[in-house]
Amino acid sequence: MSELISSSKVVSHMANGQEMSVPIYQFKGSSDAPSVYIQANMHGAEVQGNAVIYQLMEQLRGLDVKGDITLVPLCNPIGSNQKSGEFTLGRFDPITGNNWNRGYHFNEQLPQDFAKQYIDLPFDEIKVKFRAAIINDLETQLLDNPYGLNTAQHLCATLQRMAFEADIVLDLHTGPISERHLYCPEYTKESAVLFDIPHTLFIPSGFDGALDEAAFCPWWQLQLAYQELGRKIDVAVDGFTLELGSQEWLCLEEAKKDSAGILSYLSAKGVVEQGLFEPTEMTRYACYLKDYRALYSPKSGLVEYLAPLGSHVRAGEPLIRLLRMDRYGHDDVIEIIEAPEDCIAILHFASASVNQGTELYKVFTRYFTL
Amino acid sequence: MSELISSSKVVSHMANGQEMSVPIYQFKGSSDAPSVYIQANMHGAEVQGNAVIYQLMEQLRGLDVKGDITLVPLCNPIGSNQKSGEFTLGRFDPITGNNWNRGYHFNEQLPQDFAKQYIDLPFDEIKVKFRAAIINDLETQLLDNPYGLNTAQHLCATLQRMAFEADIVLDLHTGPISERHLYCPEYTKESAVLFDIPHTLFIPSGFDGALDEAAFCPWWQLQLAYQELGRKIDVAVDGFTLELGSQEWLCLEEAKKDSAGILSYLSAKGVVEQGLFEPTEMTRYACYLKDYRALYSPKSGLVEYLAPLGSHVRAGEPLIRLLRMDRYGHDDVIEIIEAPEDCIAILHFASASVNQGTELYKVFTRYFTL
Amino acid sequence: MSELISSSKVVSHMANGQEMSVPIYQFKGSSDAPSVYIQANMHGAEVQGNAVIYQLMEQLRGLDVKGDITLVPLCNPIGSNQKSGEFTLGRFDPITGNNWNRGYHFNEQLPQDFAKQYIDLPFDEIKVKFRAAIINDLETQLLDNPYGLNTAQHLCATLQRMAFEADIVLDLHTGPISERHLYCPEYTKESAVLFDIPHTLFIPSGFDGALDEAAFCPWWQLQLAYQELGRKIDVAVDGFTLELGSQEWLCLEEAKKDSAGILSYLSAKGVVEQGLFEPTEMTRYACYLKDYRALYSPKSGLVEYLAPLGSHVRAGEPLIRLLRMDRYGHDDVIEIIEAPEDCIAILHFASASVNQGTELYKVFTRYFTL
Amino acid sequence: MSELISSSKVVSHMANGQEMSVPIYQFKGSSDAPSVYIQANMHGAEVQGNAVIYQLMEQLRGLDVKGDITLVPLCNPIGSNQKSGEFTLGRFDPITGNNWNRGYHFNEQLPQDFAKQYIDLPFDEIKVKFRAAIINDLETQLLDNPYGLNTAQHLCATLQRMAFEADIVLDLHTGPISERHLYCPEYTKESAVLFDIPHTLFIPSGFDGALDEAAFCPWWQLQLAYQELGRKIDVAVDGFTLELGSQEWLCLEEAKKDSAGILSYLSAKGVVEQGLFEPTEMTRYACYLKDYRALYSPKSGLVEYLAPLGSHVRAGEPLIRLLRMDRYGHDDVIEIIEAPEDCIAILHFASASVNQGTELYKVFTRYFTL
Repeated sequence: MSELISSSKVVSHMANGQEMSVPIYQFKGSSDAPSVYIQANMHGAEVQGNAVIYQLMEQLRGLDVKGDITLVPLCNPIGSNQKSGEFTLGRFDPITGNNWNRGYHFNEQLPQDFAKQYIDLPFDEIKVKFRAAIINDLETQLLDNPYGLNTAQHLCATLQRMAFEADIVLDLHTGPISERHLYCPEYTKESAVLFDIPHTLFIPSGFDGALDEAAFCPWWQLQLAYQELGRKIDVAVDGFTLELGSQEWLCLEEAKKDSAGILSYLSAKGVVEQGLFEPTEMTRYACYLKDYRALYSPKSGLVEYLAPLGSHVRAGEPLIRLLRMDRYGHDDVIEIIEAPEDCIAILHFASASVNQGTELYKVFTRYFTL
Repeated sequence: MSELISSSKVVSHMANGQEMSVPIYQFKGSSDAPSVYIQANMHGAEVQGNAVIYQLMEQLRGLDVKGDITLVPLCNPIGSNQKSGEFTLGRFDPITGNNWNRGYHFNEQLPQDFAKQYIDLPFDEIKVKFRAAIINDLETQLLDNPYGLNTAQHLCATLQRMAFEADIVLDLHTGPISERHLYCPEYTKESAVLFDIPHTLFIPSGFDGALDEAAFCPWWQLQLAYQELGRKIDVAVDGFTLELGSQEWLCLEEAKKDSAGILSYLSAKGVVEQGLFEPTEMTRYACYLKDYRALYSPKSGLVEYLAPLGSHVRAGEPLIRLLRMDRYGHDDVIEIIEAPEDCIAILHFASASVNQGTELYKVFTRYFTL
Repeated sequence: MSELISSSKVVSHMANGQEMSVPIYQFKGSSDAPSVYIQANMHGAEVQGNAVIYQLMEQLRGLDVKGDITLVPLCNPIGSNQKSGEFTLGRFDPITGNNWNRGYHFNEQLPQDFAKQYIDLPFDEIKVKFRAAIINDLETQLLDNPYGLNTAQHLCATLQRMAFEADIVLDLHTGPISERHLYCPEYTKESAVLFDIPHTLFIPSGFDGALDEAAFCPWWQLQLAYQELGRKIDVAVDGFTLELGSQEWLCLEEAKKDSAGILSYLSAKGVVEQGLFEPTEMTRYACYLKDYRALYSPKSGLVEYLAPLGSHVRAGEPLIRLLRMDRYGHDDVIEIIEAPEDCIAILHFASASVNQGTELYKVFTRYFTL
Repeated sequence: MSELISSSKVVSHMANGQEMSVPIYQFKGSSDAPSVYIQANMHGAEVQGNAVIYQLMEQLRGLDVKGDITLVPLCNPIGSNQKSGEFTLGRFDPITGNNWNRGYHFNEQLPQDFAKQYIDLPFDEIKVKFRAAIINDLETQLLDNPYGLNTAQHLCATLQRMAFEADIVLDLHTGPISERHLYCPEYTKESAVLFDIPHTLFIPSGFDGALDEAAFCPWWQLQLAYQELGRKIDVAVDGFTLELGSQEWLCLEEAKKDSAGILSYLSAKGVVEQGLFEPTEMTRYACYLKDYRALYSPKSGLVEYLAPLGSHVRAGEPLIRLLRMDRYGHDDVIEIIEAPEDCIAILHFASASVNQGTELYKVFTRYFTL
């Protein structure tokens, strides 16, 4: 049975002077298995990941945890507390509009410089030295800035500092109204089948500001930099974003299933005993990020979402019924918006009325099975 | 087959100078049956009433409509368009916090003065003359004000002016996440069974600013004023608020059921052919407004709503599971919030996280069957 | 020199589980002079009162403070932290629209019952016993409620509990863009000239939910209840709202002037040495609350505020220039909105564009000098 | 005297079905002088540009306008109407957080392809053909997209389509609380002294999504592409962003000054008679965009802005007084935040309280005179 250490860390200061902190739970690993960092609820309305962390901890407490595991639920206090009507407006900084999950740091020069400098370093030492380098870069570039950081950067830097210690980083999100789906970097496609998630997005090596990228990009770029210099190394750190259903929804029972899927992945990686948890058998679909398409509403109106999430929709089949009550008596009082091509419906907007240009659905196109 | 006349009316002017208008659909009655006014979507997120109006019009077009019917969907353009994240923040004026459904006008002096002045007037003439009086009062008191009206009052006065022409006023709302329920004035309890709505609130004669009250209060108070003077008259105008499910939800199929329920009421009142539509058989529960209780959260945290809507919950049975992820390892990481007394769960909050003091559930207590 | 005791009190719990608290500063009085409660920043954008409390404490520390003084700056953490763009949206609960300064408690039955029961009690004992009664009522009615309190009521009850201990209650607010003005109950008109505030509103005995009323209403109603029974007593508790300029504005130098004005009042009441501070000589204007009029915009558009705050405007003189850039080339591209009657401009709206029905100015009419 | 043609164009559709449009005013040029496109109020709170357009039109009507001029005030209806408390929350799409002024389109491939294909085309024909190419690209890439555009892209594309017809594009903005300043592309530094704006930012050739860049980037990149191929051509289109003071502020008198400054620039370019308007003599300061620094608050608290806008502040001199009323009695109850280096204070935040990481000031560093 593994011991759990509780602590907390201040991540932001509010206008009234009060410090806001995140809870931190840590299992100390019994061996040198990979270390893990898991956080949840970066976007304020996406609470279900907290329940998954709860269920994970309930399970881990009874197991021999072999690698260090750090779990940070409720990781964005400003986002969690930003209410607007009966909704948690926690996707972006209410002052600036900055998406909270785009404030992480990445220095693209660092991997190239490092590879050149340490072309012949043994891989074990690369891991130690490069980790120290990116941590030092994070601290120097961001925390020693006389002009300071913006609010999102400050929060992200504090979380990223913890994530940088880990070999495996899992960021638990949800969509608006959403099927489960996984963001998995292309270099480790084989990991996708270890989770109990039926839909996977393969993402390329570019950095777009999110935590999963902030975790794996330095290491992936390092691999590519070595490759350019003629040496082949592994990517030492894996990062994933798990989208675990819908926002504004909490269900401890469903959370238990997601906890089991995560344990299956951790078991495969040796963080807990191998073979103890196995992925559920299911058909898994995937597509590349460039083929993950958002459908924006061509018109405004009231919306009935017709395509069930997870359903496979053929080109020309209906996704949306759009009701325009100012147009009763005309042909366009009700219009059907169709799928532009064959796709899987992954998520849709949370509200029943939309402006022109509101994102209606996000869909997998050109998908394939794993 | 009845003819439908379409028009629109400006109800507000936005900061950029643009006028916002509501669509108006009118059936001219073929006889002197009661006239009807139906509006929907006063609160921006409560869109389902628009679909009900759609289905009503689809049905009415094929019928002999005996009383004038005016239908106003999308009746609050400011509310409909006030988006905040993936949610329509349309419950209150975003500038002032004023609940849009509390801006109607009522002059409590008028019924008493009228009854004294026209103590012996025949009831038919009372109806004509008092209607003219409240319309005149609305126009004088509100529209001739050198200091003007606030935004909610202006919108409400424009809608109320139309509603004042009718003998029956139906205001279509929804709850946040909600069972269907009906607000019915106490003086006409027998009307509650004519709708297909399983839960009814009986409301007293006081005016609290909403449209249903704005419609019936003048007439109910008039009845009471005559009664005080020793004469018994009927309440000439009925007003109801129908809560038709959840906000941010549109379903044309479910709307058809609600349309049928409204037609059953209108049929009983002779607005369409009597006997053509009958209320569905169901057990109907009711309670008095004073026994409709809101349960406020004693603590903050993440919320799993345990009591299904419409379910009968005994005192001490669970309503809410509250998850506090900052308290893992302590007894209060999960707490159950129980029903303080026997009740029916009617609606609950829309978000999965709450501040201390957020309304969790609204419940019928001391309920009875109709 | 008086000692200052610092503490804090939890007043709300946020969705992420975190407790929010208010700082409390207390001077213990050296004699039995009246006790004082001062709070600031109930509305999140109205920060200047905090600076006034700062300056007050700087002064009080060097004086012999004769009555207990409790000072609570930043008294509404939710309001202070509710940002929306570059503005603090702290006037109402963002979930419900409830104005934070309307959540206080008043039991109108209590004074009448008390007067009947204790018709002959000496006044000193009335003060002790009635204070105990309203505190007990607050705690019983509000805190022992199985259905709980809403968020605003909870915050207000916690603050009101502290205010109920005091003989003098000052609630420091600001307007949007505003001249200094004072809300003073009619029964103590002579107090208005003790502050350094040039504009005073005399308010009647009714309770409308604000802290000043919550402080004096029980005692004023008690006086009236005794009066009805034929006994004459004083109103034992005074409550004032001070509006100290504009929101979103902080100036320590101006705060010092307001601090001096408050000390002048406290000095007159014997809380600090009498005669130590004297009110500044100025012409003071006043009107009754019913004559404090809000001018709502008859149209929407861009707004140039023409009447300087504090200026005396004659009926027909310009208050507003309204620019409608969609109307260039027409007569109404620029329109002047005039004062409906002679008035003093006290405050105006903070934004340069308005909807139809937005409050433009608030003005004193039928004003007089003190 | 030039004739003014008024029209309007639909730029967005709101959830309630209503179309929102922008007013368009056009002067037809009397000769082949450069054509001009001017818009204002892309960010909802930045209204002063509308007044400047008003004053410009008042002047232009009496002049011989030699080049076509299109003026679009109130260019973002959604932004103008997005109120949140007493503030216009119009900087970003309230649904997505997308900054409205980052939704313009730029195809970086196009200039290079064009230069290769038309290496020897005469410059006059380049101007016609390349303009047709970027317009065609805008229409094809954006408007023929089966997945549609998001709301900001749709608005921007409609405005950009008009701007693409012009040789000179002026986008009128304001800061939060701000001095006048100008964004001027580096290739046309000599233009900066033609406006009556004391502070200029020189911006590089990269595209960051704003209208000025969307206007000049294609043409600047075209120049660079030809240069790479060994041919020297001019940049045919100029684009500027003018920041004309503070948001939520309207002043027709000040607008007249800015109108005069714009006429001075237009006069120099021959759009109106040359020599008719001359720039005001003043010391003009400038810096490069990379030296325009935002100072983020290292702590949270209440803020007094000490450095007057436009003032030159030496390293170590005070910019901000930060008041922490929860810290009274401690050294950090008041702290001074100093300028990290010599700078000119250009703008500051609009609210008097800040979170940690809120942008306090933006300053010119390493500035020089023009």
